[in-house]
Order: sequence, then C-alpha cells, then structure tokens
Amino acid sequence: MSDGPPGAFADGIGLTITDVEPGYSRGTLSVTEDLLNPNDVLHGAVTYAMADTGMGAALQPSLEDGQSCATVEIKMSYMEPVRDGDLVCETTVTRRGGSVAHLESAVRQGGTLVARATGTFSIFTP
Amino acid sequence: MSDGPPGAFADGIGLTITDVEPGYSRGTLSVTEDLLNPNDVLHGAVTYAMADTGMGAALQPSLEDGQSCATVEIKMSYMEPVRDGDLVCETTVTRRGGSVAHLESAVRQGGTLVARATGTFSIFTP
Amino acid sequence: MSDGPPGAFADGIGLTITDVEPGYSRGTLSVTEDLLNPNDVLHGAVTYAMADTGMGAALQPSLEDGQSCATVEIKMSYMEPVRDGDLVCETTVTRRGGSVAHLESAVRQGGTLVARATGTFSIFTP
Amino acid sequence: MSDGPPGAFADGIGLTITDVEPGYSRGTLSVTEDLLNPNDVLHGAVTYAMADTGMGAALQPSLEDGQSCATVEIKMSYMEPVRDGDLVCETTVTRRGGSVAHLESAVRQGGTLVARATGTFSIFTP
Repeated sequence: MSDGPPGAFADGIGLTITDVEPGYSRGTLSVTEDLLNPNDVLHGAVTYAMADTGMGAALQPSLEDGQSCATVEIKMSYMEPVRDGDLVCETTVTRRGGSVAHLESAVRQGGTLVARATGTFSIFTP
Repeated sequence: MSDGPPGAFADGIGLTITDVEPGYSRGTLSVTEDLLNPNDVLHGAVTYAMADTGMGAALQPSLEDGQSCATVEIKMSYMEPVRDGDLVCETTVTRRGGSVAHLESAVRQGGTLVARATGTFSIFTP
Repeated sequence: MSDGPPGAFADGIGLTITDVEPGYSRGTLSVTEDLLNPNDVLHGAVTYAMADTGMGAALQPSLEDGQSCATVEIKMSYMEPVRDGDLVCETTVTRRGGSVAHLESAVRQGGTLVARATGTFSIFTP
Repeated sequence: MSDGPPGAFADGIGLTITDVEPGYSRGTLSVTEDLLNPNDVLHGAVTYAMADTGMGAALQPSLEDGQSCATVEIKMSYMEPVRDGDLVCETTVTRRGGSVAHLESAVRQGGTLVARATGTFSIFTP
C-alpha cells in the first residue's frame, strides 16, 4: 500500500497518501459535492476512509515479507462538521505487537481537529 | 433522510435505504470493483457508510419538526472480509434520549455477520 | 477463568460469573454503596468490569491448552443510569478467529438494557 | 467532582485526582493485589475507571451552575499489561459542545503508554 496506489475506492473519493514513514502516514482529500450527505455536510464515511486507509499505510512499512494486515475495528469521533475545503489525516502506530497493532488518526482542516479515530489492526503471518 | 435520497455520497457507492420504520432501517449495497481496497477486499469505509447512513435513517422518524441529527461517534468491528456480492445493513435505535441517541447496526452477507457497529448521534433542537 | 474464581478485583466488587458455555457467559452483581460515583450513580467502571470479565469468561472455553487471552479494546455505551438493584451481564462471542476474537455484552436491569459493550480480545498461542 | 472526593468507588480502588484545570485532569493510582485479575494482571476496569473518572473531572470546570454531566460511551484500548507500580492518567477535553463533549485519556506507567481512551459525555442543563 505504501508503494502503490491506495486502491479503487480511495482513488474514487480523491484520497491521496502523501507521506509514509515507519509508524506514520499522512493523507489529504479535497471535499467535493459528490462526497456530501443530504445535509450538505461531508459524509462521515469519507473522513473514516481517510483514517482507515491511513492506518493501513502507517502499518505497512513494519510488515515483513509475506505478512499482510486488516482492520479489526475503528472508532471515529466527529468534532466539527465539514462542508468544503481540504482535509489532512495524520496517523500514528501507537503500539505494534506481533499479531495486533493499535493506531490513531487525527483529521484536521487548517488547524482544527474535525475527527479522531482509534483502531486495531490484525497482522497475518503466513 | 427517510423521505428522500440518501445523498450524493451514498448514491455514489450504490447504497439504497430500502426500509425505514421508527427506530429501524434497512439498507442494501452491491459490491462493485470501484469499492475495493488494494487487496481486492471491500474497503471498510463502504461498510461503515452503510451503518452511518442507516443510523441516520433509523433515527429520522423520531425527529420533530425542525430537529436535526448528526453522528457523534461510531465504532465498527469487522468479522469477515467481503469481496463481492450483496450486503444488507440493519440498524436499530437502542436508546432515544432527548439530545442523544444510541444505535446499532449489523451488516450481513447471506446469513453471515460481516461487520457490527455501535454509534451515538446528537439531536439538535433549534 | 471459567474454572475458577473471577479474580481479586471482580470478587471485590461482588461480581459473580453464574454461567459459562462455549461462546457465552452470564454474570451478576448487586449494586452497593461502595460502587457509586459522587452523583450516587453506579460508577461506569463497574458495569464495564462486568463486560470485560464476562468477555474473558465467554472466550475461555474455546482456548486450547496453553493458550491465553487478553483484552485488546472494549467500547461501552451507557443507556440508563443505575442507582441500586441487581444487574445481569450476558456476553457472546460474535467471531472467534485464530488470534483475534470479537465479543459483545449487554448489561440489563430487569428487562431494561442499561449498557452495551463491543470488544476485541487477543488469543496467544505459546 | 473537581471540588470534592472522587466518590466511593474511586476511593475504594485508590484513585486520586491530583490536578484539575479547565479541559484537563490528572489522576494517579498504585496497583495493589486486590486490583488484579486471575492472571495477576491489573484488571482492565481499573484502568478504565481512571479514564472515566478523569473525564468527568476534566469536564467539570466547564459546567455552569446547575449543569451536570454523564458518560455516554468510552472506548479503551490496552497497549501493555500492568502488574504493579504506579499509573498516571491524563485527560483532555478535545471538543466541548453545548450538550456533548469529546474527551481523551492516556494512562502511562513511567514513560510508557499502557492504555488509551476516547469518550463522549452528555451535558445536562436543567
């Protein structure tokens, strides 16, 4: 994931992973009309997609050959509605165990925290 | 939301709300290639979108004139990877308070539970 | 855990695991004054302890010799305040994977749902 | 809560709120044998109690006369097992709305993050 495109769904919503370092990723997205909900607010699943994709990207550099990872669960909290403009999602690995990793994402618009996620990923070794 | 289309983003991923009753909603979605992640698995944000949209739909009938609602937080857990086929998301309101509601969603493929969400919504009275 | 006492902390709060079957557990607790918070409401951590302990108990029968388990994360939602009386916590394993399990708990007083938890446990094989 | 004892349950587990500032609290606890689970590890509900109580304490200074608050939901993730020693829980209010607040807690032992919580509280105005 860190070496390639983020996949069809992430591409479709305009999500770009701009930086990946071990234990860290940064992604950006510009809000467009096709990402809104019926209240003309950014659909929460778009913000969530930034976190989920960012978590996979941040974890990827720590995977050994043949290992893969998958989302076990993510909780996302919404602090501010978003109607337009650009979002930045920064993700960090807070704990990398052998088969489980903990991650956190913060989605910001300008300097304002708009959403926060904590998640768990499984790491599979063949 | 219960009286109209689910919005641009939900439309774009092919999500349809098929049933809305007070405290309940049901939505469906067919997995297509543009919804996959780089591992050819359905992106977790799509399943999440079913829950988030379904929660809004289930809560909507209980809103009085002028009231609106918004997602405070949702946690989603993934039990099974999804690669193709159809998904059904059923959502129930487990507690409707004056300004806060608790909701739960189950996303199933056939009879198999593939994801589970619990969430909190705010209810705003002008 | 299913074969012995629930441990010092669970004992101290009066939590009893009354039933354990594969993928299921049931625990009970009587609210006493020393379990209250400053608002004379049952401290949320007591309800949480019922879920956490109940999840361990429900998972235990599926562990093979030498395997152990630990809580990765739990989210608990509170529907109703509790001031006195008896509580029952029922827990089910919703997905048992090789190294990760998903679990859910419902804490009820009489017929009323007072709290709901979803959690993830790690399973360790030596 | 910021002006008085943390309540019977918090007292019973030895939890002390050492600092409260608007939007912030700090609590400490020494691990004792009666707080352990059957694996001789600190019961997760004790760590959770630090977060839940700390969240109430951090929110308290922002309440106006007559307002009260209650936990809507908390998710806690466990990074490291704890067997003995002292714990410090720091909590911050990440968003204070009119009727809902978002909060985060970090529980550390020495410099190590052992648990992380995000939560939602309701604010009631009579």
